[in-house]
Amino acid sequence: MRHMDSTPLDALPTPAAVVDLDRVEANLRRVAAYAREHGLRLRPHTKTHKTVELTTLQLQAGAAGVTVATPREAELMATVADDVLLAYPPVGAARLARLVGLPERVRLTVALDSTEALEGLGRAAQEAGRTVGVLVELDMGMRRVGVQTPEEAVALARAVASTRGVEYRGVIFYPGHVRAPQVEQGPALREQSSRLGAFVQALTAAGLKPETVSGGSTPTLWRSHEVAGLTEIRPGINVLNDRNSVFVGACAWSECAYSVLATVVSTAVPGQAVIDAGSKALAKEEGMDPAGGYGALLDRPDVLVRSLSEEHGMLDLTGTSWRPRVGDRVRVVPNHVCASVNLHARLHVLRGGARHATWEVAARGW
Amino acid sequence: MRHMDSTPLDALPTPAAVVDLDRVEANLRRVAAYAREHGLRLRPHTKTHKTVELTTLQLQAGAAGVTVATPREAELMATVADDVLLAYPPVGAARLARLVGLPERVRLTVALDSTEALEGLGRAAQEAGRTVGVLVELDMGMRRVGVQTPEEAVALARAVASTRGVEYRGVIFYPGHVRAPQVEQGPALREQSSRLGAFVQALTAAGLKPETVSGGSTPTLWRSHEVAGLTEIRPGINVLNDRNSVFVGACAWSECAYSVLATVVSTAVPGQAVIDAGSKALAKEEGMDPAGGYGALLDRPDVLVRSLSEEHGMLDLTGTSWRPRVGDRVRVVPNHVCASVNLHARLHVLRGGARHATWEVAARGW
Repeated sequence: MRHMDSTPLDALPTPAAVVDLDRVEANLRRVAAYAREHGLRLRPHTKTHKTVELTTLQLQAGAAGVTVATPREAELMATVADDVLLAYPPVGAARLARLVGLPERVRLTVALDSTEALEGLGRAAQEAGRTVGVLVELDMGMRRVGVQTPEEAVALARAVASTRGVEYRGVIFYPGHVRAPQVEQGPALREQSSRLGAFVQALTAAGLKPETVSGGSTPTLWRSHEVAGLTEIRPGINVLNDRNSVFVGACAWSECAYSVLATVVSTAVPGQAVIDAGSKALAKEEGMDPAGGYGALLDRPDVLVRSLSEEHGMLDLTGTSWRPRVGDRVRVVPNHVCASVNLHARLHVLRGGARHATWEVAARGW
Repeated sequence: MRHMDSTPLDALPTPAAVVDLDRVEANLRRVAAYAREHGLRLRPHTKTHKTVELTTLQLQAGAAGVTVATPREAELMATVADDVLLAYPPVGAARLARLVGLPERVRLTVALDSTEALEGLGRAAQEAGRTVGVLVELDMGMRRVGVQTPEEAVALARAVASTRGVEYRGVIFYPGHVRAPQVEQGPALREQSSRLGAFVQALTAAGLKPETVSGGSTPTLWRSHEVAGLTEIRPGINVLNDRNSVFVGACAWSECAYSVLATVVSTAVPGQAVIDAGSKALAKEEGMDPAGGYGALLDRPDVLVRSLSEEHGMLDLTGTSWRPRVGDRVRVVPNHVCASVNLHARLHVLRGGARHATWEVAARGW
């Protein structure tokens, strides 16, 4: 799936998803060093990039295993990883069949929050003659998924422990509601420690001490060690970064390794330039930055993509004296890298600023 | 690319994009009758569905040609259409080469708003030994692309008329800024008529009377005939419809022919149910409905998808007594069908409520 490609960047048809491999490697080193320093197991979430190649680099750089969300991500990443966490309840016959059909060498763990999901998983695992680990999903305040109280956690963990085909391995949570910049996260992290402590204490008292406590999020990444009891982090975005991760202080602009190469196609309307990267290349997701917009130029971060149509991105030129011409090329860092990558069939990989390889975004879809 | 598939809907892995063919055919009949009644040429925009199969149905139902935005859409739709409008400036060597490389039997027309785009097109057309029609793009108030004044329109149309390889065919615009419900559009449509009249009058006075005046948008679709001088409409969304088109009054809920089939995967958080259709299946685009949310259930339009993560859709149950269980299935009508279709590799087509065919969303990407 990886092949060398010597077409210069200038000749690449646009829009094109571009990855700076030097920055990727620096990002991989930084997160591996952080996890090592704090004794946290590193299990990156591959949903961000959906490529087998980047998963391989993550494992080489020190990841103990990978996180996935979909059957397709699981199947593809299992071709290179021996330890896979499906951080998603596998509900329904098709998802279960594909999960337990993964190669036997793969150590499988699944997150869930209901007895319905547990029973289905137990049956499928037994029929396949394998044991699947289970992490009980806790709601730490995001209000998306997860059991609500220590009592519910104990009841579900007990059910896991008494279900054949599965093995209780601990707890998992995702504090996606903490979106403040890193410098202001103290109170939220203390609240997380306290809430997590109550869950762990109740489980331990019931003889169900969690071996794995898996947590973390992009905004809180570099303060994960402040959450007492955490054993594992699952960073996704950090390998590529985006405008949102810069805004929350999880990375510097110079650590953004992903951008969309685009061509200026119109300057007819005063005060703006239109590029051929629209919502179908960048994703029309509101960002965290109150300045608005859907992305900013890699080389001119003060120039925002103010609005998007499907194939048009409108660059706001009102705050700059720069005036691009029709045919000029720019690179846009989107608000949310996962959503943008998912719109592209391939990533064009640069090394030292030159074309190096093309990676297929192979795990798109389900 | 089309094949029969007898898997029942209940057994389809989720999330899955589903198209109701009976509703599609009714939508095709309705728009064809409208265009016929008002003497408007019908040139549907295929970016909504990106399938060759639906393009074929549109041509069979009375479309005089098709509209496309990308090279890939042009190439695929040209396999079944003999008259293709690229409603997008083809800037850059790659786009130009693919455009003029379309089969010679295809009558080609291109929209543009700059001399840079015109010069590139003229050179490429001459080198390929073909003539490409040009429509001068007018800005009718959306402020996205398009020349700003009648004087600019005349200057560009003159340049087109004197450029070898191309042929001046008229004007084009997209009034995407008119987002009011149909019943309130009177003033906006009168303003459009007056603005368009000024452009057409100046062009006619300069001996450049536009043979084609191509316009229209989804919200204004059924009042297109009120825009004086319009000769052609390019409806996109109308063939499938979505939550936004219902909100603006362009269709009834019962005319929504597209939905995403999903499975409930968690009910752990009170007041909501989580489905396995998130932003990577529905698209996280804000809708026009002030009630918010990213979609509504096909069979329970009062139940909204309140928020989205990448693989999670949160159904708001606070206004309903309905309480789905983990494993139950629902169908979601998204805010913006084009953005959702673009996230799926295939469409599962129903006839009489039963599985009928699978269509590849073949024109994704560029």
